[in-house]
Amino acid sequence: MSELCKDISVSFAAATLLSERDWLILTHQYPDGDTLGSAYALCRALQRTGRKARVICADPIPEKYAYLTSAAQADEVSEAHIVAVDVADSKLLGAEFNAVYGKRIDLCIDHHHSNTRYASRLLLQDCSAAAMPVSKVIAAMGVSLDPVIAEALYTAISTDTGCFKYSNTTAETHRLAAELMELGVCADRINREMFDIKSRARLELERLALAAMQFHFHDRLAIMPITAEMIRRAGVVENDMEGLAPIPRQVEGVWVGIMLRETADGGFKVSFRTGNHADASDIAARLGGGGHAAAAGCHINKPLEETLRLLVDAVAAAVPSITE
Amino acid sequence: MSELCKDISVSFAAATLLSERDWLILTHQYPDGDTLGSAYALCRALQRTGRKARVICADPIPEKYAYLTSAAQADEVSEAHIVAVDVADSKLLGAEFNAVYGKRIDLCIDHHHSNTRYASRLLLQDCSAAAMPVSKVIAAMGVSLDPVIAEALYTAISTDTGCFKYSNTTAETHRLAAELMELGVCADRINREMFDIKSRARLELERLALAAMQFHFHDRLAIMPITAEMIRRAGVVENDMEGLAPIPRQVEGVWVGIMLRETADGGFKVSFRTGNHADASDIAARLGGGGHAAAAGCHINKPLEETLRLLVDAVAAAVPSITE
Repeated sequence: MSELCKDISVSFAAATLLSERDWLILTHQYPDGDTLGSAYALCRALQRTGRKARVICADPIPEKYAYLTSAAQADEVSEAHIVAVDVADSKLLGAEFNAVYGKRIDLCIDHHHSNTRYASRLLLQDCSAAAMPVSKVIAAMGVSLDPVIAEALYTAISTDTGCFKYSNTTAETHRLAAELMELGVCADRINREMFDIKSRARLELERLALAAMQFHFHDRLAIMPITAEMIRRAGVVENDMEGLAPIPRQVEGVWVGIMLRETADGGFKVSFRTGNHADASDIAARLGGGGHAAAAGCHINKPLEETLRLLVDAVAAAVPSITE
Repeated sequence: MSELCKDISVSFAAATLLSERDWLILTHQYPDGDTLGSAYALCRALQRTGRKARVICADPIPEKYAYLTSAAQADEVSEAHIVAVDVADSKLLGAEFNAVYGKRIDLCIDHHHSNTRYASRLLLQDCSAAAMPVSKVIAAMGVSLDPVIAEALYTAISTDTGCFKYSNTTAETHRLAAELMELGVCADRINREMFDIKSRARLELERLALAAMQFHFHDRLAIMPITAEMIRRAGVVENDMEGLAPIPRQVEGVWVGIMLRETADGGFKVSFRTGNHADASDIAARLGGGGHAAAAGCHINKPLEETLRLLVDAVAAAVPSITE
């Protein structure tokens, strides 16, 4: 397939989905509300048109999303037709899934401008959540929203916008939320589950991480390291680790907030969060990563002290005014 | 004026406002985003129709709302015509303002069903924020929204709904938010300021308080004590102390969350938060306090250890099933 026709429209994506009898729907690893909500909404919509569909994920789905999985029906599918949602890079499927499915994904619906264009067809919209283009594709498929689709889409847009708080929230996001709430979505229950409830282990990890937070450049740069030792001491599981990345930038006066987390290989997964003063993707790009202007990430395979030094240097280089 | 014509419509409220040349606009004491946002939006709208208007508040306006006050123009007004917004009871104007203005308020625009009907005319709508009826009155006055009005209204609805998270959020709330965002409201900046930003001292206090949190009854009761010593060590000021009370109940599995804070007299101000399993006002009542089903409070004038024991006993007595 030529590069020229890789980028497709909403109606082409809808037609592509309707042109086959069954679809395997892939989410990214370490699944979040957007990839899951988008996937389950699309699954339900396909089933409503008489297609067979099934959502799979390389990782276990966190308990707090149980209302999405329990409302879903997993059909037997041929695995001949594959769509990925909210997956910017086939590597993010997880190594095993990438090996099996990575090179034969027919369609990707995404919202990351860093999308690596691994799928045969790509519907890419630069908006708050993958659920935004997914909702348009569902409409273009001629499927009206029902409460199950609405809860899935609401979960996706609410989680990816920090409950309509982040700069990726637009008038369009709020209009979709309004439409979904009219279908009876229990928004306050979902949001409490997504944003408020924390395990005791998570609280302990936050306590340790806050104590380890370090500041640079007149306190405009805050770095919160989470080491394997902290993870062990707090007793957190993977599910407890979501939503830590915004914490450093929540400190008054901080331009650039960085959270780094030690990974199994001894390196660090790094998350950058910035406001108007700095571009997170610029900083991440200097370290081989990428992302959006306000949120980006990279991986650094060095010991902690060296990683911290690399981060401070990259911020200084990408945001010269922070050092003034 | 007869009781029969006290409750008025949006268009009557608009006509009332347009019928006079100048208006004094009152907010409630301890001002929040809704009373301030509603007041400044209405002030600007009145000025746009050629009226004179001025917002006043019994208390200093917190620094984080500076963008509202700095965008506003305070006209000289006669104080002959007075409108109160988001003020459920004239007592909430503050004692001094109540004495001066309490009995001569021409119009109240509010959303609290507990409104004591102190004003001559009352526009009361049971919705997420006073800014909802205020936005309708502005439209009925024939004033189109501008960016200044939009930021004020957005501040009001976002703060009163916990950034669209609480159960008072409706499709209508999201539709108004969409309209306001199209006028260029910097929602992420406002929300960051209102919900995310914490001083370093506040972070330190949270860290100390989390470390001191204790659990009882199979971890269904969480108590977070904040002592004078912690406040001193963290170096927090009064503004840093907002929004601590919900923290204990945000721990997974907690039915009753209690925050206690040492006061100048050596006693403790106690805040209870509960979900469906327990009634906060029942617990508070056993200790001489009161409140609502989900949030209540009391004051205990005992040393810490004795206070903690009294609290645990009161919870066991008020919520027998918590001990099972």
